[in-house]
Amino acid sequence: MGIQEIWEKLESRFSEMQSIRRYLHMHPEVSYKEFETAKYIADFYEEIGMPYEKNVGGNGVVATLTCGLPGKTVALRADFDALPIQEETGVSYQSTVPNVSHACGHDGHTAILLTIAKTLFEHREQLHGTFVFLHQHAEEVTPGGAIEMVEAGCLDGVDAVFGTHLWSPYESGSIHTCPGPMMAGADSFELTITGSGGHGAMPHTTVDAVALGAQIVSTLQQVVSRRINPTSSAVLTVGSFHAGDAFNIIAGSAKMNGTVRTFDTVIREQIIFEMERIIKGLCDAAGATFQLDYTRGHPPVINDDEMAQFVLDTMEEIDGIDSAHIMEANMVGEDFSYYLQKRPGTYFFTGAKPLEGTAYPHHHPKFNFDEQAMVTAAKALATVGIQFNKQ
Amino acid sequence: MGIQEIWEKLESRFSEMQSIRRYLHMHPEVSYKEFETAKYIADFYEEIGMPYEKNVGGNGVVATLTCGLPGKTVALRADFDALPIQEETGVSYQSTVPNVSHACGHDGHTAILLTIAKTLFEHREQLHGTFVFLHQHAEEVTPGGAIEMVEAGCLDGVDAVFGTHLWSPYESGSIHTCPGPMMAGADSFELTITGSGGHGAMPHTTVDAVALGAQIVSTLQQVVSRRINPTSSAVLTVGSFHAGDAFNIIAGSAKMNGTVRTFDTVIREQIIFEMERIIKGLCDAAGATFQLDYTRGHPPVINDDEMAQFVLDTMEEIDGIDSAHIMEANMVGEDFSYYLQKRPGTYFFTGAKPLEGTAYPHHHPKFNFDEQAMVTAAKALATVGIQFNKQ
Amino acid sequence: MGIQEIWEKLESRFSEMQSIRRYLHMHPEVSYKEFETAKYIADFYEEIGMPYEKNVGGNGVVATLTCGLPGKTVALRADFDALPIQEETGVSYQSTVPNVSHACGHDGHTAILLTIAKTLFEHREQLHGTFVFLHQHAEEVTPGGAIEMVEAGCLDGVDAVFGTHLWSPYESGSIHTCPGPMMAGADSFELTITGSGGHGAMPHTTVDAVALGAQIVSTLQQVVSRRINPTSSAVLTVGSFHAGDAFNIIAGSAKMNGTVRTFDTVIREQIIFEMERIIKGLCDAAGATFQLDYTRGHPPVINDDEMAQFVLDTMEEIDGIDSAHIMEANMVGEDFSYYLQKRPGTYFFTGAKPLEGTAYPHHHPKFNFDEQAMVTAAKALATVGIQFNKQ
Amino acid sequence: MGIQEIWEKLESRFSEMQSIRRYLHMHPEVSYKEFETAKYIADFYEEIGMPYEKNVGGNGVVATLTCGLPGKTVALRADFDALPIQEETGVSYQSTVPNVSHACGHDGHTAILLTIAKTLFEHREQLHGTFVFLHQHAEEVTPGGAIEMVEAGCLDGVDAVFGTHLWSPYESGSIHTCPGPMMAGADSFELTITGSGGHGAMPHTTVDAVALGAQIVSTLQQVVSRRINPTSSAVLTVGSFHAGDAFNIIAGSAKMNGTVRTFDTVIREQIIFEMERIIKGLCDAAGATFQLDYTRGHPPVINDDEMAQFVLDTMEEIDGIDSAHIMEANMVGEDFSYYLQKRPGTYFFTGAKPLEGTAYPHHHPKFNFDEQAMVTAAKALATVGIQFNKQ
Repeated sequence: MGIQEIWEKLESRFSEMQSIRRYLHMHPEVSYKEFETAKYIADFYEEIGMPYEKNVGGNGVVATLTCGLPGKTVALRADFDALPIQEETGVSYQSTVPNVSHACGHDGHTAILLTIAKTLFEHREQLHGTFVFLHQHAEEVTPGGAIEMVEAGCLDGVDAVFGTHLWSPYESGSIHTCPGPMMAGADSFELTITGSGGHGAMPHTTVDAVALGAQIVSTLQQVVSRRINPTSSAVLTVGSFHAGDAFNIIAGSAKMNGTVRTFDTVIREQIIFEMERIIKGLCDAAGATFQLDYTRGHPPVINDDEMAQFVLDTMEEIDGIDSAHIMEANMVGEDFSYYLQKRPGTYFFTGAKPLEGTAYPHHHPKFNFDEQAMVTAAKALATVGIQFNKQ
Repeated sequence: MGIQEIWEKLESRFSEMQSIRRYLHMHPEVSYKEFETAKYIADFYEEIGMPYEKNVGGNGVVATLTCGLPGKTVALRADFDALPIQEETGVSYQSTVPNVSHACGHDGHTAILLTIAKTLFEHREQLHGTFVFLHQHAEEVTPGGAIEMVEAGCLDGVDAVFGTHLWSPYESGSIHTCPGPMMAGADSFELTITGSGGHGAMPHTTVDAVALGAQIVSTLQQVVSRRINPTSSAVLTVGSFHAGDAFNIIAGSAKMNGTVRTFDTVIREQIIFEMERIIKGLCDAAGATFQLDYTRGHPPVINDDEMAQFVLDTMEEIDGIDSAHIMEANMVGEDFSYYLQKRPGTYFFTGAKPLEGTAYPHHHPKFNFDEQAMVTAAKALATVGIQFNKQ
Repeated sequence: MGIQEIWEKLESRFSEMQSIRRYLHMHPEVSYKEFETAKYIADFYEEIGMPYEKNVGGNGVVATLTCGLPGKTVALRADFDALPIQEETGVSYQSTVPNVSHACGHDGHTAILLTIAKTLFEHREQLHGTFVFLHQHAEEVTPGGAIEMVEAGCLDGVDAVFGTHLWSPYESGSIHTCPGPMMAGADSFELTITGSGGHGAMPHTTVDAVALGAQIVSTLQQVVSRRINPTSSAVLTVGSFHAGDAFNIIAGSAKMNGTVRTFDTVIREQIIFEMERIIKGLCDAAGATFQLDYTRGHPPVINDDEMAQFVLDTMEEIDGIDSAHIMEANMVGEDFSYYLQKRPGTYFFTGAKPLEGTAYPHHHPKFNFDEQAMVTAAKALATVGIQFNKQ
Repeated sequence: MGIQEIWEKLESRFSEMQSIRRYLHMHPEVSYKEFETAKYIADFYEEIGMPYEKNVGGNGVVATLTCGLPGKTVALRADFDALPIQEETGVSYQSTVPNVSHACGHDGHTAILLTIAKTLFEHREQLHGTFVFLHQHAEEVTPGGAIEMVEAGCLDGVDAVFGTHLWSPYESGSIHTCPGPMMAGADSFELTITGSGGHGAMPHTTVDAVALGAQIVSTLQQVVSRRINPTSSAVLTVGSFHAGDAFNIIAGSAKMNGTVRTFDTVIREQIIFEMERIIKGLCDAAGATFQLDYTRGHPPVINDDEMAQFVLDTMEEIDGIDSAHIMEANMVGEDFSYYLQKRPGTYFFTGAKPLEGTAYPHHHPKFNFDEQAMVTAAKALATVGIQFNKQ
C-alpha cells in the first residue's frame, strides 16, 4: 500500500467529517436515548456496504471490516451520547435540542470513526486483519454502554482495543497518553435528605433541608481536604442540589447528585465511609434522615504498558503529528476502562484546543474544540489499528 | 332579630361549608391563576342573587349586601389562592392537581365567607348597614391581591375591615388576636450566583456554584444569629435552592429564593444590607458574580387597638366560643396589612388544630385543619361584622 | 430635711466620685479575686465610721446605716469585679494590670454607692429607716456574688432592693427601666472537642479539631436562626475558641467557651437540647468526642411591676434628671436577678454615653462612659432609697 | 578494614545510643532555644576529641573527621530541636519540660549521628576521605537551621550530603527513599482577623471574630477540595486558632497559624492567591479586616537521582537491612532541601514503627518509635558515607 495514501485521504475528508460532526452536534441525544444517532451510524454503514450489527448491548452499533491480508483483529471505539447541558456556544451549528448538547465532543468521535471506517473500507484489500468499529452509546452514565457492549460480546475475537478522546485543554494536533493509570474511576451518588417542611416564617416548626444540605455540602469538602492522603488524587463533586419550590415555604427535603473520582479502591472505600459518616452525623444533628445511593461506577482507565508504548512509537511515524506526550493521569472517568479490563489496549487524548478564544472545559455550556483535530485523531487512531493488525 | 338565630343557622350549615371547602381543596389554583376559583365564587353569588363584581384588581370578587336597617359599612375578607406544594395528607378529598394544594387553609376561608354571605343575605331585613364581602386572590405572593383590590377601590365607603385565618397550631374553637403588631412584614428575594461550570472531575477549572451557594446559605444564618438585635424578631429563610442538572457536571450557577420577615423597617433594611454584604463577600472570595433581586413585600399586620379590643369583647358574647386570647405576634406575613393601612380593623386567628394526629404547620405537605373550626370562624367573623354595623 | 440638699451634696462630690472610680479603674481585679477592691471598700466605711461586714458570701462587703427617723429597710447594690480584657482606651487612668480592666463600669458603680453612703450617713438624723449598702463581688461569672451574698443573709430584714447600671449606649443622664423582664437569663458553657492530633502535613492520620470546631461554631448559628421561635429572644455566643500550639501540628483538641441568653426556661432548655444534638452529630461525623459542661446561670432580671413604676415616678421629682424611659428588655445578664427573686425591687440603667467619640459597647477593650453620669446615678439611686424608706 | 566490623560496633552500642536518646528525650528544647542540647553535642565531641565548631548559623554544631585514607568529603546530618507539644506517652523517660517534647524523633537522630561519629573516629585510619557531621538546630520552623548552616559555610568542601529520618509509619528496619521529589515544600502562615469585640449578649454591636474565623477555616477547605488540580498534591492546615478570653465577651480578633505543603511552585502560588481571596471576601462580608503573613518556607526535598540509586544499592550490601524501598513522596516538609539545593545527595527514611501498640503519627502527643531502628539507621547512614568517600 502506502499508509501515506490513507493519511492523505483522511486529510481530504475534513469537510466530510465536519459535516457529520455538525449534523450530530445539532441533534444531540442524552445517554440511553441515542436512538436517532444510532440509526444515523447504522445508515452510514448500510450505505457504504460494510456489515454491522445494531442494538449491541443497547443502542451500540458494531461494524466489522475483514481485510484482504492476514493479520490480527483490532477494535477501535468511539462513543456517541450527549449531555443534559444547555449549549451556550452561539455557533451556527448549535444544538437544536433544549438542554441537551454535545459538550464533551462525542459528536467528533463519531465523525472520526465513521470516516476511518469508510476510508479503510476503500483500502481493505491492501490492509491486514480485521477492524471492529465500536460505536458506543451511554458513556456519560452508569452502568454505561461499554460494559453492556462487552457483555454482548463486542470484543469476541478482538486482540486489542484502542480509542481516542478529543481534549480541549491540550494543543490541537498533539497526542497524549501514558502507561498504567490514565483516567480515574468514576462513581456517582444520589443523596436525599429529609427534614420537615413548613411556613417560611416559622423555621422552628420545621427541619430546614436547604440549611442542612448546605452544611452537608460544606462539610463534604473535608473528605478531600482532610481525610484522605493528600498524595492520593481524589475528587468529590456535588453536581446538583435541588430543594424547595417556593420562596416562602421551607423545604422539607433536598436532593443532591454527585460524583467521586479515584484511582484506587482503598481510597474510594474510605471516601464512601467518610461521606456516610458525615451525612449521618449532620442529619442526626438536625433531626433529619437521609438516603444515600452510591453507585460504584466505571473503574479507572489503566492502559497496557506495552500498548501505550506502541501508541507513542506509532505517532512518531505519522506525518503531521507534532508531538506525542506522556501525560499525567487525570480525574475524568471513562468507561473505556471496561474494554481494557478484557483486552490489552490503550486510550489516548488528541489535543483539540480551539485556535482562538477560550478553551472551555469539557461539560461547560460553551465547550467547543478545534475541528481540524479530528483529522489528527483519525490519522492517529487509524494508523494504530493498521500497524497493530500487521504485527 | 335574634343573632342567636344566625349562629344556629351557621352551625346548621357545617356540612355545606365542608362541601364547599372540600370541592375547592380538590381543585386548588396557585396565586394569580385562580380563574376557576374566582368563577366558583362569582357563581355562588349569582345563584343566591347578591350583587357582586368580578375581576376586582385581578381575580378578586367583591359582593355587597345592603341591609334593611341603617348602619355602618363593614368589609369581611377571605383569600382563595393555593400553594405550589404537592399534598401528602392522604385524605379522600386530596388535591387533584399535581404540585398544587390548599396547604394554608384558604379553601376554608372561602367556605366560611360564602356561608356568612348567604346567611346574612337571608336575614338582611333585620340587619344594619352594609356588608362588603372581599374574596381576595393572590395572598401568598407579591404584590398580592390585597393591594390590588384596595387600589381597585374595594374599600370605598367601608368603615372597618375584619378577617380571620384558620390556624392549625391553636386549639380548635379558640380566637386569638392582639392590639398593634400581629404579623410580620414579608419580603421575598431571588438570588442567582454565577460561577463557571465544567466537568465534575475537574473542579479546578470551574467556580462551583453548589459549593459556593452552600457557603452562602450557611453564612446567611449569621444575619439573624449575630447581626441584628436579638430582641428584634426576624426571620431569613432560603426556601429553595436549585443548581445543576447532572451528577458529573459542576454547576456554573445556582438560584435561591427566600423570604425575610420583620416587624420593623430599620431591621429590614439592616438585613438587606447584611445580606448583600455577605453575598458579595462570598462571591468575591470564590471569583463568582451574583444578582440579588429583593422585593419589599407586604408590610406587617398592625391591628387597630380599639378594633382589636372590640373583637375580643365581641367574642365573649358568642355562644360556643370558649376563649379569646391576646396572642403574641408571629412572623407569618399577610397582605391583610394593606387593608389595615387604609381602614381601622383587626385580623384574628381562629384556632383549627386537628382533633387527632399531628398538627402540621401551615405550608407543610401534610397540613390540614379541624373543619369544625370553620363554624367558629363563621360565627366570630359574622358577629364582629353585625355588631360593628350596629354601632 | 430637704432632699434638695442631698442632691446638691452629691453633685458637689463629683470629683470625689471620679477619684474613687479612677483609682479602682487603674487597679481592677477579676471576679473572685477582688481582694484589694474589697479592702478598699471596707477601709472607706471604716474611715467614715459606718458599721460594715466583710467577706459576706465571698469578697462581698455590706454596710448598714440606721437613720434617725422610723421607716422601712432598703438595700442598694453595686458590683465591683472587673473583666479579663486588655484595656485599649488610652486614657490617663488606664488599667495598670495587664489583661484586666473595668470594661463594664463596675468601678463607677462602686464610686456611686460609696458616695451615696457617705452622704446619707452625714444626713442620717433626718432620714427614715435603714439603708443596707450591698457591695457585691463576682457579678461577671457564675455562681456569682449575688446568690452567695443572699445565701449569707445580706437581705435579712430588707424590704426592697434597688440597683443601677451605668449604660454606655443610652444618653448620659437618662434613666431606663421597665416592669417585668428587663435582662436575660445568662448561662455559660464550656465545650471541649477531642479529635486526634498529628503532623500538619498528614491530615488523613488525624481528626483535625480546628476544622471540626469551625464547623461546630458555624452550625451552632442555626440554633438561633432556625430552631427557636423567632419571636423569642435568644443569644448563643461562642466567646472563645482555643486550639493548637503550632502552625505545623494539627490540633487534637479544641476548647470553646460561650454564653446562652434567654428570658424563658422552655427556650433555654430547647437551646441546650439543640446544642447537644448539633455537637454530638458533628463530632460523630468527624470521629471525635466531646465534653459539654453547661452551667445554668443567673436567672433573668424580672422587676417588680409596682417597684418599677415607683422608680419611674420618683425620677420625675429629681432635679436634673431629664427623662425616665420604659426600656425594651435586653439580652445582657445580671445576677441582680437573685435579689429580685427574694425581695421586691427594681434594677435600672443610668445612661452614660460618652459625650464625645464612639460609645463602645460594654466589654469592649475601648469601653468607657461619661463620668458625669455617676452624679445622675447617685441622685437617682439615693432618692429611690430615701423615698422608699419613708413610705 | 572491614565495614562488617563497624556494623558490629554500631550494633553493640545500642544501649549507648538509647541512653543518649533518652537523656535528650527528657530534656527537649524548642526550635531556636536548643542551647543545652547544642552544648550536650559539643561536649560529646570535646570528650572524644574530634574537632568541632559551635554556633554554626545559630545553635548548629559541626564536627569534622579527616580520615587516614584519601577520598571524598561527605556530610551526614541530624537535626536536634523539639516541638511545643505536651508529651502523653507515659514512658519512663518522658519529657520533663511541660509542653515541649521530642515528638518527631530528632532525639534519636542525634543519638544516631553521635554514635556514628564516635565509631568512625575510632576507625579513622582505615577510612577514606572526610566526614562532616552536621548537627542542625531549628528544623521545625522557618527560616530554620539548614539554610542558616549552609549560609554559614557548613557545606564548604563537601561533595555530597546524606541524612535519614526515623519514620514511625514504616516497619522498623526498612529503608525508604526515591529519586526526585520526596518531601513537600512547607510554608507557614499567620492570619489575624480583626472584627470588633463586645458583650456576649449583644452580638449586633460587634463583629464576632470567632464566628468569622470559623467560616474562614471551613471555606479554606475548598482550596484543596475545589480549587487546585486534584492530581497535584497539596495540604492546607490551620494548626492553631486562638480567640477570646471569656465566655461572655465576644472576641474582637482571632489568630490562626497554619501550614501549606506543595511540591510545585505554581500550585503554591495558586494556593496563596486563593487563600487571600477567600480571607478577603469573608472579612468583607463581615465588616472585618485581616493581616495575612505568609512565609514561603522550606522548598521540597528533591533527591539527586544518582545519589538515591546509590543509597538504594548500598542498602543491599548491609547485613541486617531487610529491605530498601522506593517510596511515594509525602507532604511532610524538611529543610534538608537546602542542602540538596547546594550539593548532590539523598534523604531517606528509616522505618521505626513500634513493635507493639499504636504507631502514632509524628507530632502526635503519644508519638514514639522503635529504638532498635536507631541501629539500622546508624548502619545505613554510616555505610552510605563510608562508601561514598571511597568512590
